[in-house]
Amino acid sequence: MSTTATAATFDPAEFRKALGTFATGVTIITACAPDGTLVGLTANSFNSVSLNPPLVLWSLATNSLSLEAFRGAEYWAVHVLSADQEELSGRFARRGEDKFAGLDLDEGPGGTPLLKNCAARFVCRTASQYEGGDHLIFIGEVLSFDRDESAPLVFHGGRYAHATRRDPADSKPRSAHLAGSFGEDFLGYLLGRSHFRFFAQIRPHLADAGLSDEEFYVLSSLTLKPTLSESDLSIGLNGVLDDRSQQAVQSLVGRGLARRSPEPSGADEGAAYELTESGRQCALRLIAAAKAVESQVLERLGYNDAQVLKSLLNRLLAVIDPEGKTLWDSASGPVSEPT
Amino acid sequence: MSTTATAATFDPAEFRKALGTFATGVTIITACAPDGTLVGLTANSFNSVSLNPPLVLWSLATNSLSLEAFRGAEYWAVHVLSADQEELSGRFARRGEDKFAGLDLDEGPGGTPLLKNCAARFVCRTASQYEGGDHLIFIGEVLSFDRDESAPLVFHGGRYAHATRRDPADSKPRSAHLAGSFGEDFLGYLLGRSHFRFFAQIRPHLADAGLSDEEFYVLSSLTLKPTLSESDLSIGLNGVLDDRSQQAVQSLVGRGLARRSPEPSGADEGAAYELTESGRQCALRLIAAAKAVESQVLERLGYNDAQVLKSLLNRLLAVIDPEGKTLWDSASGPVSEPT
Repeated sequence: MSTTATAATFDPAEFRKALGTFATGVTIITACAPDGTLVGLTANSFNSVSLNPPLVLWSLATNSLSLEAFRGAEYWAVHVLSADQEELSGRFARRGEDKFAGLDLDEGPGGTPLLKNCAARFVCRTASQYEGGDHLIFIGEVLSFDRDESAPLVFHGGRYAHATRRDPADSKPRSAHLAGSFGEDFLGYLLGRSHFRFFAQIRPHLADAGLSDEEFYVLSSLTLKPTLSESDLSIGLNGVLDDRSQQAVQSLVGRGLARRSPEPSGADEGAAYELTESGRQCALRLIAAAKAVESQVLERLGYNDAQVLKSLLNRLLAVIDPEGKTLWDSASGPVSEPT
Repeated sequence: MSTTATAATFDPAEFRKALGTFATGVTIITACAPDGTLVGLTANSFNSVSLNPPLVLWSLATNSLSLEAFRGAEYWAVHVLSADQEELSGRFARRGEDKFAGLDLDEGPGGTPLLKNCAARFVCRTASQYEGGDHLIFIGEVLSFDRDESAPLVFHGGRYAHATRRDPADSKPRSAHLAGSFGEDFLGYLLGRSHFRFFAQIRPHLADAGLSDEEFYVLSSLTLKPTLSESDLSIGLNGVLDDRSQQAVQSLVGRGLARRSPEPSGADEGAAYELTESGRQCALRLIAAAKAVESQVLERLGYNDAQVLKSLLNRLLAVIDPEGKTLWDSASGPVSEPT
């Protein structure tokens, strides 16, 4: 254990960090005050209490501006947020703006404002209010609830997090012939196999377009920026094609899909390349085909897991390919595609 | 919303599912009963209440066998579990075994048993006990706590989950030249780039061993099972080498790293291949080098994120490469490596 505290040396910041090790969902709790004002705030102190009768609880700081409104409200609603509601969470965590402005609301008992598209909603009647130090604990009887199948917004260690389900296999050792072999627990194997199998589904479309793998890698790199210098290309295709990229570029130029850019390539002394109109059309057709393959895969993997996988691959690339980032950071703004 | 209930149609199973949309960490709560018996149970109803004074809460079913012990205990401890403590969570969630058997314990006030290697621990004195329907709510004053930097065990939707931090970039649109281009949001790009950049770090070791990429793919496949039939190889390298795998096999055979297996290859009519002793030695050297590359990458990515990434890639492969699985499922038990 890295940090220890006793009553004598109680550091509030450390205490907060220790509490933050417990992951939670994120909720927005709303009510209509006796004077008709709508109140709402983001809270992660929600939890279930009882199944029969159905009770839930949450707690509110006694110095909250909304304390009196919640204390006086007979009804309140708990909204469990889904992974795509981070922005809503932020809106209700800030003070002093009209948090409900522009939101499409349902109306619950006593005028309780109900948000839409949440992972779950619980409409409650206050059952008890208990003192809890600098917070007031609200216990509510659940009058009605609804639920949606969606990935949760998670809070852990003072920041938002993704959650993905754990497979039983995750904690099992993988079988392998040679100890530590190139198997299912080796990242290189998983990346290679995933890439090759995914790419195999796109390759028929390349064949239709008459492109080799190498030509496709160069063509797809040329979709990233309006013009790519030779040094961009060598960074972009570093470890992919190495010395074969020049050959693939020349082949694309020879086929009229790319051309040497007439514009000077800035600080870079070498040549720069860009797609021709027919190269753009070819790239757009391949993008559409590849996206269709991707959608099928993502649908079967599940939207949330797919987002987390992409996020982690981007994080991996920041570790193993920091130079590749410069291709993006230096990219000029998006250029609209031809209509 | 897919499910709605009102007081009139309150389905406990649906209510439990709706509550399960709120992700939580997992805790084990322990105490020493007045008669000296150690009690402990897994709970996810923990939450923080107050910073000053420092208070936390959790709730316990009134029909729990441990109710009287906790009701009578002056002290209790909350252990926030880390991602690698799923087994401990399961042990304390079951009834009627000696849950503490064989565990290395610290001792807290009043003989409270304290578990080790948790994400955080809070040693508490009961401050209040409140009724909450079929549960009793325990509010504890935190006397001391400690904390470790570790990934959390998460519970969501009735099962364990992984949590990984969210990057601000995850909710930002990526810039790209052509709309929907082959960029950072396209899974195929991320897989390809990750694979090529990772592989580029291993390639120097292949060069040392005088192996081409293709020969390496075949050699590494031969580490998976004692013998690989031609159909195993074509499944294993489907989309990787296609018609080039036979050529690479023959090249390995010619160099004395692999040989045609003398054993018949079972139902399969074709030839089967296996590593020679010098092929095993070569593979073991490459495995060691590749694992060293992997460790550096995983350390920089972080152990938890790396585990989640591997888990998601395995899940992706189950979607895009269901046949590849048969290579593993049919694998005979591990064969010990030569010492």
